[in-house]
Amino acid sequence: MNYLSINEIDNLSEWVKEAIYLKKNPLKHQGLGKNKTIGLLFFNNSLRTRLSTQKAAMNLGMDPIVMNFGSEGWALEFEDGTVMDQGKSEHVKEAAQVISQFCDVIAIRAFASLTNKEKDLAEEVLTAFAKYATVPIINMESSVGHPLQALADAITMEEFKVPNRPKVVLSWAPHPKALPHAVANSFIEMMKKQDAEFVITHPKGYELNPDIVKDSIVEYNQEKAFKMQTLFIQRIGVHLTFTEKLFHKIKTG
Amino acid sequence: MNYLSINEIDNLSEWVKEAIYLKKNPLKHQGLGKNKTIGLLFFNNSLRTRLSTQKAAMNLGMDPIVMNFGSEGWALEFEDGTVMDQGKSEHVKEAAQVISQFCDVIAIRAFASLTNKEKDLAEEVLTAFAKYATVPIINMESSVGHPLQALADAITMEEFKVPNRPKVVLSWAPHPKALPHAVANSFIEMMKKQDAEFVITHPKGYELNPDIVKDSIVEYNQEKAFKMQTLFIQRIGVHLTFTEKLFHKIKTG
Amino acid sequence: MNYLSINEIDNLSEWVKEAIYLKKNPLKHQGLGKNKTIGLLFFNNSLRTRLSTQKAAMNLGMDPIVMNFGSEGWALEFEDGTVMDQGKSEHVKEAAQVISQFCDVIAIRAFASLTNKEKDLAEEVLTAFAKYATVPIINMESSVGHPLQALADAITMEEFKVPNRPKVVLSWAPHPKALPHAVANSFIEMMKKQDAEFVITHPKGYELNPDIVKDSIVEYNQEKAFKMQTLFIQRIGVHLTFTEKLFHKIKTG
Repeated sequence: MNYLSINEIDNLSEWVKEAIYLKKNPLKHQGLGKNKTIGLLFFNNSLRTRLSTQKAAMNLGMDPIVMNFGSEGWALEFEDGTVMDQGKSEHVKEAAQVISQFCDVIAIRAFASLTNKEKDLAEEVLTAFAKYATVPIINMESSVGHPLQALADAITMEEFKVPNRPKVVLSWAPHPKALPHAVANSFIEMMKKQDAEFVITHPKGYELNPDIVKDSIVEYNQEKAFKMQTLFIQRIGVHLTFTEKLFHKIKTG
Repeated sequence: MNYLSINEIDNLSEWVKEAIYLKKNPLKHQGLGKNKTIGLLFFNNSLRTRLSTQKAAMNLGMDPIVMNFGSEGWALEFEDGTVMDQGKSEHVKEAAQVISQFCDVIAIRAFASLTNKEKDLAEEVLTAFAKYATVPIINMESSVGHPLQALADAITMEEFKVPNRPKVVLSWAPHPKALPHAVANSFIEMMKKQDAEFVITHPKGYELNPDIVKDSIVEYNQEKAFKMQTLFIQRIGVHLTFTEKLFHKIKTG
Repeated sequence: MNYLSINEIDNLSEWVKEAIYLKKNPLKHQGLGKNKTIGLLFFNNSLRTRLSTQKAAMNLGMDPIVMNFGSEGWALEFEDGTVMDQGKSEHVKEAAQVISQFCDVIAIRAFASLTNKEKDLAEEVLTAFAKYATVPIINMESSVGHPLQALADAITMEEFKVPNRPKVVLSWAPHPKALPHAVANSFIEMMKKQDAEFVITHPKGYELNPDIVKDSIVEYNQEKAFKMQTLFIQRIGVHLTFTEKLFHKIKTG
């Protein structure tokens, strides 16, 4: 089974319950990964996802092999049927099969390029690995989603005893650099999975993907959006990184 | 004992037999590397050699220390008697001795520079480590050879039950980038060790090293070369990478 | 407890005695680090400090997570109260707290920038991690000091049976690149801790930090400095690297 997006979660409250249990008993399944290897493939930089995923694997008794494709690996070709005469080292089809021979699980981080919207929306890298690898694939943030982060969000809400129908504002703010939408996207999907009273706020012109936003309420006036809910919980812990670009405020009724 | 080239192999059929046995029983010698460390030093990028060597070390119970000299390490000086006034951080003599203090085995990848033929043919980096290190050295592809790859080729041929005197065509094809000859070189040497009926084919002007080709038959006409043999086996599995630059066809009589 | 500078050493002769004992019995405390993780954070390149620290951690049974912030990590903001509108990914305050959640010890290498003396003297990176992390911090060479190296120096002197009051010359020589003073600084402080008969020699214009040199004797004439002592021991072993930039000669009375 892959973990490519939060749609993979069949029963959210059970997953969250188990995650909270494992957070308290991190070595519970220490024998599970014995003599098994996880390949952590980074096409982009990572701090907390790298640390948390590697530590989680070690807690399961797995051996991690970390590869930074930027500085260590090969330039891969992702398109099928291409004549590879531009110096790419090999096709992802071969790479994914090779890595599958040595790794029992493959976790991949590959951000949006922000230069080719079509390829970004197709999650070119993640999709190619899911297609050609013969072992489970974990999404450590793709161009479209960050389902590990979204699951952590759900855990945080449970830990803060947010009631069944939480009131949430996602405030998507301008950032000095153009930023991928992966974290926001998965958060929106998670809110739908949680059946939250959910409002998105951002300045005009910073629209998120309409295919993901769908019928969520969007309120350009941040103050107004916050007032629609009454109590806010700042994102904490592993999530603090994103506070400068992504403010979610969680309100308990 | 070092593994610098396939000349280190004293009895090929025994090595291949043991390799095939270990492929089926990868954890057979899991205690052998306990509390031992392998240093994996990459002066160039690597995918399958990195994965296979690290996984093999872990199967032996060893702890790997991976260093990418391009991005992590120091610029080393390889020439003896040089006044080091150009900013190189230290001489390989010191580096090799230091690494030997912390690693029980050192594996090295250092491609041909393709800018200085003399130094490339002398395998500057590999030779320097073999000279100054006090622990065994493994060649993970040097400027001249790729003996792990060539051994894998021999294993593949055995697995495909190629008869004692196989009929082989090495087809060395143009590639968008200038490519080192290491893989081709070690393959040619391996074919000699195997006493194959061996033909090399490549376009005129893509001559391989005459000191390695020696008296092997070279046929510029690829079609004609293939016709000299009658049955071909495509390179498979871990070797597929090289299909765009190196096509070997293995024929059983 | 942190190990930020050699001032952290409460009883030098006991530390040296224990270090020599552990050098002979490296696996003595193999159970100590079981299920514990050390984060090795490199803001600059490293060879022997990387190898020795990672190997030491493995000898204690710890799992290392190595991160090269240059090529892998995020650009961190170290100043408090800054508006982060220049593209830095996150503040060290958050990064240090996050890393503390996954690592039981954090070891950091962050050289002097050599572009901002004030920040270098404040040991910006190391100080920030010591302030915000919630686990012990080890200095793997900061802008001001290299206390692991200085401790190794003290061990070497003990191994060579240098008498209680050794006669030492630190010869600080010009180098093609501008070099940080960290190694020299910690060595000077170590000599004071050892109550050595200590002379510093370097060409005029290569003055070390007066706050660290304090009342140590400085003799510009290298020959004369060497003559003040009569017997010299070349730095050896793990220290050989520095011979081209830093010559210490240790004299036994």
